[in-house]
Amino acid sequence: MADYPVFYPGAVPQLRLALAQINATVGDLDGNADLIAAQVSRAAYADAAVVAFPEMALTGYPIEDLSLRASFVEASRRTLDALATRLATEGHGELVAVVGFLDRDTEAVDAVGVPKGSPQDAVAVLHRGEVVVRQAKHHLWNYGVGDEYRHFVAGDIVNVVQVAGVDIALAVCEDIWRDGVPAAVAAAGAGLLLVVNASPYERAKDDTRLELCARRAREAGCALAYVNLVGGQDELVFDGDSIVVDAQGTQLARSTQFAEELLVVDLELPAATGTEPDPDALVEGLSVRHTALSRESPRSSGRLEPPNAERLDDLGEIWHAIVLGLRDYARKNGFGSVLLGMSGGIDSTVVAALACDAVGAENVHGVSNPSAWSTEHSRTDAAEQARRTGLRLRTVPIASMVDAYDEALSGLDGLAAENLQARIRAVVWMALSNAEGHLVLACGNKSELATGYSTIYGDAVGGFAPIKDVPKTVVWQLARWRNDWAARRGEPPPIPEATITKPPSAELRPGQLDSDSLPPYDVLDDVLDDYVEADASTSELVASGFDRELVERVVQLVDRAEWKRRQYPPGPKISVRNFGRDRRLPITSAWREHLPH
Amino acid sequence: MADYPVFYPGAVPQLRLALAQINATVGDLDGNADLIAAQVSRAAYADAAVVAFPEMALTGYPIEDLSLRASFVEASRRTLDALATRLATEGHGELVAVVGFLDRDTEAVDAVGVPKGSPQDAVAVLHRGEVVVRQAKHHLWNYGVGDEYRHFVAGDIVNVVQVAGVDIALAVCEDIWRDGVPAAVAAAGAGLLLVVNASPYERAKDDTRLELCARRAREAGCALAYVNLVGGQDELVFDGDSIVVDAQGTQLARSTQFAEELLVVDLELPAATGTEPDPDALVEGLSVRHTALSRESPRSSGRLEPPNAERLDDLGEIWHAIVLGLRDYARKNGFGSVLLGMSGGIDSTVVAALACDAVGAENVHGVSNPSAWSTEHSRTDAAEQARRTGLRLRTVPIASMVDAYDEALSGLDGLAAENLQARIRAVVWMALSNAEGHLVLACGNKSELATGYSTIYGDAVGGFAPIKDVPKTVVWQLARWRNDWAARRGEPPPIPEATITKPPSAELRPGQLDSDSLPPYDVLDDVLDDYVEADASTSELVASGFDRELVERVVQLVDRAEWKRRQYPPGPKISVRNFGRDRRLPITSAWREHLPH
Repeated sequence: MADYPVFYPGAVPQLRLALAQINATVGDLDGNADLIAAQVSRAAYADAAVVAFPEMALTGYPIEDLSLRASFVEASRRTLDALATRLATEGHGELVAVVGFLDRDTEAVDAVGVPKGSPQDAVAVLHRGEVVVRQAKHHLWNYGVGDEYRHFVAGDIVNVVQVAGVDIALAVCEDIWRDGVPAAVAAAGAGLLLVVNASPYERAKDDTRLELCARRAREAGCALAYVNLVGGQDELVFDGDSIVVDAQGTQLARSTQFAEELLVVDLELPAATGTEPDPDALVEGLSVRHTALSRESPRSSGRLEPPNAERLDDLGEIWHAIVLGLRDYARKNGFGSVLLGMSGGIDSTVVAALACDAVGAENVHGVSNPSAWSTEHSRTDAAEQARRTGLRLRTVPIASMVDAYDEALSGLDGLAAENLQARIRAVVWMALSNAEGHLVLACGNKSELATGYSTIYGDAVGGFAPIKDVPKTVVWQLARWRNDWAARRGEPPPIPEATITKPPSAELRPGQLDSDSLPPYDVLDDVLDDYVEADASTSELVASGFDRELVERVVQLVDRAEWKRRQYPPGPKISVRNFGRDRRLPITSAWREHLPH
Repeated sequence: MADYPVFYPGAVPQLRLALAQINATVGDLDGNADLIAAQVSRAAYADAAVVAFPEMALTGYPIEDLSLRASFVEASRRTLDALATRLATEGHGELVAVVGFLDRDTEAVDAVGVPKGSPQDAVAVLHRGEVVVRQAKHHLWNYGVGDEYRHFVAGDIVNVVQVAGVDIALAVCEDIWRDGVPAAVAAAGAGLLLVVNASPYERAKDDTRLELCARRAREAGCALAYVNLVGGQDELVFDGDSIVVDAQGTQLARSTQFAEELLVVDLELPAATGTEPDPDALVEGLSVRHTALSRESPRSSGRLEPPNAERLDDLGEIWHAIVLGLRDYARKNGFGSVLLGMSGGIDSTVVAALACDAVGAENVHGVSNPSAWSTEHSRTDAAEQARRTGLRLRTVPIASMVDAYDEALSGLDGLAAENLQARIRAVVWMALSNAEGHLVLACGNKSELATGYSTIYGDAVGGFAPIKDVPKTVVWQLARWRNDWAARRGEPPPIPEATITKPPSAELRPGQLDSDSLPPYDVLDDVLDDYVEADASTSELVASGFDRELVERVVQLVDRAEWKRRQYPPGPKISVRNFGRDRRLPITSAWREHLPH
């Protein structure tokens, strides 16, 4: 993290706000409380009046059905109370801390259709050792990868908290993706809308979020501060990238992407009017509640330079997202090392490079399993990558295992023989993982997952699949991006150029190429983008210029591979719609969208 | 199916109602329309005035994210219109047909938080070639395995359709699990509440449903007819078991469980009052719409015996549920045969017996893979089962493959060596499946899944896992039940007695027993029932009498095995909470519920 504070001369600001994008771990209440306390301490040192943490910072996000376990809900509530006490005990009781946590509606009763125990995705304000305000998310996120109607009951109050002479309204994530809360905030005449979030990364979402914050600031008629979670959680990667905009929607400050950071910003905001809102006045079903906290302006000696972190480009974002997702999956699940089969192909090469960035090359174990059909350059390319990066490569030939199976199962040929080799390799990886304790990585890309072009229990084995949401064409782009990034930093490019330029092959039979079984990847990926991510119909695909037979073939491959995808390991979502929680289709389905003749 | 009609002398009934519990296939619009047309024809032959089909009969259920594909929604709507025309063309236009289908709210506009295209889980009334009434489900099912807020927008109208002088109110499944629709029906003074359902089987749910129907009939002040889907769909099994109760809640008729059936029942119902409801009157947010159809009373020559099918007991229900779930998974996914590893243990023995009942013994391929640690009786027990049932058993010893791996990976021992054997077997099964086209069955039970006592990519491989939701203690009970059932029918018991009585072992090392690694199964299953199915906290478990260390150990095993469960094949839900859509927990979770010291 950057060092704070960096003062510069000028007028004393009206409100110094700190946004703490922390990497919380799901379920680790004590550990997350420690992270929060550490950032409160830093914010206090920086003379902030208010410090805000992400949505569900205390529990991690998403907690899924943990919200339905009464023992977990009570633990979250207890930990919050203890945190309030602790902050005061540690001398930071004056600093107003805004913390996302798991609450429950204590007045609700269990009924059919209401999540058991009435859990709530809530935000609390801690001050002078007490929880002074609690507010539950009003709009639940229930599309894409969100399932919040299952897990939470909604709140119906917007709190406005007066701190250092400024009225600060609170909101939780989805609340600003809809109209209700911004309208209520506008009616309440707040000076700042503070939004706590757990918004996962996907491509181009940072631009969408900035536009959203700007628009909602204008609608609410006040500045808006957006603090986001950071870190990997199963298939999701939270990118941080916290934002502050003024009442006109102009960006004032922005955090680093994909890293923990404490953003401290000085804001000039309109003074609170001091008028109490009518407690019965409702805007879109929401009532506004006002709380004044006797927290004075900070005693800071000067103004801060507005922090605006450098932005990553599209491929840089993807790379960092996967690295963080993989690093956190390994770390949070207790793995210090990873193992992967290295075929010399572009997929395993890119996964190996990602793994080196995520857990350190010394913790990356590559296994080369040459067979009769492996080309010489496959072995030399893998060895070259190991030489450049320092990852640990070993070779376990599979010819003797193939022979043993061939003898026991005489007459295997075609697909059965090809899959056999892939599965024999996987058994080797799993044996080494069991013996040595590595997390096994599956190296399949999204184009393969879409079309079912992989061997289940073969190359598909693994605890984590780093590039499962990356189309093949983007895998090549990432390889080039990573080498360029190395060059810009004066480091050796980790990915051998030959791996990028050679035609892709599974090397499961002599002279085999992916193009024997699949359309060219640039065409395939375009069709998949439209069919999988945009729900285009076959008629729309043909109307947009794709070949009729190609469309029928690709759609059929995708529809029939659902069963394989179900057993695929998790991996980081980078697209607007991943295979997993974003796209939930039945395995058993006779729906085949045929083109009109 | 039973033959209808069976008339007996008496007064002409006021309303002859047919409930058609059909086995629809998800996505097979044309095939499902054929099933519906066939049952309409039978209902017409039985002189029914009204025939009702299950919820989403035209599309199958659940369709998951297919609801978000505009092309699928439009196809459902087109197919419904064509069905109405077809029924009239086939001479059955006078018969009033009530059909569940996928509709959309054509007046809604897309917005954040609203399912794209505003799809609706709807019911239609078809008469004289037209769709005369459409009604969307009011209460969406969004707990347990239901995700309907993701997939549908709710309706707000209850239709009352006057047929043969009787006012029939309509509802869709979840609508009677809540209070609103029954209250609106009571206000409308209908003579019959007709509910179309897609309600999946779980243990004891049939009793719950009967009680629910009886209570809602009393609340609505009228008779209630409940028609349910039948058949397997991925992890769900719909059990049919359609019900008719009178206004006092007394059961009048009930269908066969787990089989397609046309239930035809004669009802004496109060005549419609003829008063039009106030279109603006709202009961719990619902308005009532009235439609009179000029359909006369049936011209039947006599009264029908009220049909009440014989009931299965608890174990009989489980057995039939799994058989139907497996049969339909195979059939609907195009598999004519199944393959499984037969270890001679109770799990694979029960799965083999289930498979014989589901797809016929001649289509069941057992593979025995003896290793150095397999006992003699394991081989003889599997052979004995093959002899009794006629399933096809072959033996593929794995010693040579084990040797080849041992040589390539010197020094494997402990868990790595045990898992290696399990995975070598799985590669054999998958090779045979690829070569011969069988559906591979995984034989793990729920106790194993809960504790992670299985080898991923070993015994866990398969396209379907018939007993994954069956606790080990119930696996033994099922074995005894199936043998008793055979005895009652004078057939040879399919399961060798020795398999039931011997102590369970994975046979992956000399003298290994499950009890080396796990608590006794009767204790384990009791803890799992409370922890997994009832969300009991560790404190509650200890308070209820379980040993403290046992509770800590079991809870830890369950919490740490989530990653394995994610990659397990689908299998039929029989419990109140299966591992899968019913219990969705993060893989990455530091939450460990420790007992207070």
